[in-house]
Amino acid sequence: MTEPAQQSRLALTPGEPAGIGPDLVIELAADGRLPDNVVVVADPELLAQRARALGRRVSFSDHNAPPPSADGSICISPVPLQAPAHCGQLDPANAGYVLATLDTASEGCLDGRFTGMVTGPVNKAIINEAGIRFSGHTEYLAQRCHVERTVMLLTDGNLRVALATTHLPLRAVADAIDTDCLETTLRILHDDLQRHFGLAQPRILVLGLNPHAGESGHLGREEIDIIAPVVNRLAAHGWSLHGPVPADTAFTADMRQRYDAVLAMYHDQGLPVLKAGGFGHTVNVTLGLPIIRTSVDHGTALDLAGSGRADSGSLLCAIETAQAMAARARLS
Amino acid sequence: MTEPAQQSRLALTPGEPAGIGPDLVIELAADGRLPDNVVVVADPELLAQRARALGRRVSFSDHNAPPPSADGSICISPVPLQAPAHCGQLDPANAGYVLATLDTASEGCLDGRFTGMVTGPVNKAIINEAGIRFSGHTEYLAQRCHVERTVMLLTDGNLRVALATTHLPLRAVADAIDTDCLETTLRILHDDLQRHFGLAQPRILVLGLNPHAGESGHLGREEIDIIAPVVNRLAAHGWSLHGPVPADTAFTADMRQRYDAVLAMYHDQGLPVLKAGGFGHTVNVTLGLPIIRTSVDHGTALDLAGSGRADSGSLLCAIETAQAMAARARLS
Repeated sequence: MTEPAQQSRLALTPGEPAGIGPDLVIELAADGRLPDNVVVVADPELLAQRARALGRRVSFSDHNAPPPSADGSICISPVPLQAPAHCGQLDPANAGYVLATLDTASEGCLDGRFTGMVTGPVNKAIINEAGIRFSGHTEYLAQRCHVERTVMLLTDGNLRVALATTHLPLRAVADAIDTDCLETTLRILHDDLQRHFGLAQPRILVLGLNPHAGESGHLGREEIDIIAPVVNRLAAHGWSLHGPVPADTAFTADMRQRYDAVLAMYHDQGLPVLKAGGFGHTVNVTLGLPIIRTSVDHGTALDLAGSGRADSGSLLCAIETAQAMAARARLS
Repeated sequence: MTEPAQQSRLALTPGEPAGIGPDLVIELAADGRLPDNVVVVADPELLAQRARALGRRVSFSDHNAPPPSADGSICISPVPLQAPAHCGQLDPANAGYVLATLDTASEGCLDGRFTGMVTGPVNKAIINEAGIRFSGHTEYLAQRCHVERTVMLLTDGNLRVALATTHLPLRAVADAIDTDCLETTLRILHDDLQRHFGLAQPRILVLGLNPHAGESGHLGREEIDIIAPVVNRLAAHGWSLHGPVPADTAFTADMRQRYDAVLAMYHDQGLPVLKAGGFGHTVNVTLGLPIIRTSVDHGTALDLAGSGRADSGSLLCAIETAQAMAARARLS
């Protein structure tokens, strides 16, 4: 039997134990900013150690018990470390620990114990060094959820930028933009903006691939051959799509007011402008999964672990975004 | 014999006669915001007609006479139109007119009559339609000045972004970034930041080509094989260069304070973030020419010509930037 209190619980995985993920959880909890319904999926001894290093007071409660209410309380779903964790020192022995926290959180989302999951930063290289192929949270979770295609969306709470391609070498980008990829991306973006962001008729601006959106074919033909046909076909269904437009003039204040989301064709076309204004409070949302998943926008910052200088702003925004998405899912 | 007053004169070419270039000159002059030392290289009858269409009062003086001082005065170096110009209607018959204004201005810069030139927007397609190969102001002026390589720099008066490649299809970018191109670009950028921007030791941030600056080779090797070696070689001369760094986190407030200019590898990596904040008051500066040349950051906006709704902000910024560059050239 599932209690209503449990239905709205959110799983939080702090990620790499040698990085700042544990610090951020401690800081939020000690400051009374960690919401009561967040269940931290981690080794409680790691968090206790990190709290001592940071000079912060926290206590732990079991996630099967009623949610705690005192400041400094961390509701925990325990997963044991495989080796002691030291600030700033990556250890492949803990790669399995990191993945076990993701498994616990994602399984809990799939079976309804959690309404969504929020992930802290991991280090891809050390997981691969441990002999486990791992190309990122998003791909890992897609596989666990048996989903072929997801879409990465970043938001600072105001501007939303989705990407048609993500972590590809620049020279591979143009060939990766094909009709299927683009149409699937737009469908996922459109549907999840409706489902998770409460936008009945999401207004989506689609960027061109080339400078000046190809300038009528003078600077590349992908806009004419691929992007415009897909946009026109989907717009004919009554969707509010506009594009392809030049990227350099797509992010002015006027344009931001007119669209709910921008679809950029690749990583460095869409993200510099978002992070220029919002770094430290931008959130990464994975669209296209059967579960809700948000993430911080920063890395493990190994040099800051245990220093007390890590900024918990992005993690708090990721929690708040997941809460808002979960609230809409309950209403719908 | 050259008078001192003439030595500091700046040439302004309004560009395409059917576009908003003439409007911007009229608006600035009628509002008393066109500096006395600006010489407009254009057909005075075109400007008089446009002033009537806009309902603004302007008068004209010859550029060989002493500079005018009354508001609404436009000091003019006349070049006759080849066909009547109508707002919003491109006519290949005037392609020769547009180029003649550029020739007059650039020759005046080369022979010392002008200290620099400021260009309004032109339409490349209509010039090509007239049977004249024209790929842009920058390339045209480089040829007139017998220069092989120039660098495009855009600035909003605060952030400066230079580009290693400019108007190339995205799929051609990776192959265009080679050691020679990058080293020449950095030399021109470094030298012209010293010469024109008064920066004795310019601090330059160099972006990677790939997302996450290639992530140690996992997302592309150009950073390891090309960019880092060039940066390290030039930094060994005592230059203040840093990079390659990931583009998405290069434009935060903290990073902007630490560098005088950012070198982006391509158009849509560097310009969206600049124009997001500064569109309407960003200026395009051509580095590497023997003359000073600045330009507006917008197009001909044919639909706004004669409407009174064109914004002269970018043209005014382009004039002010050229004035400041010319003042530094006189001092040095």
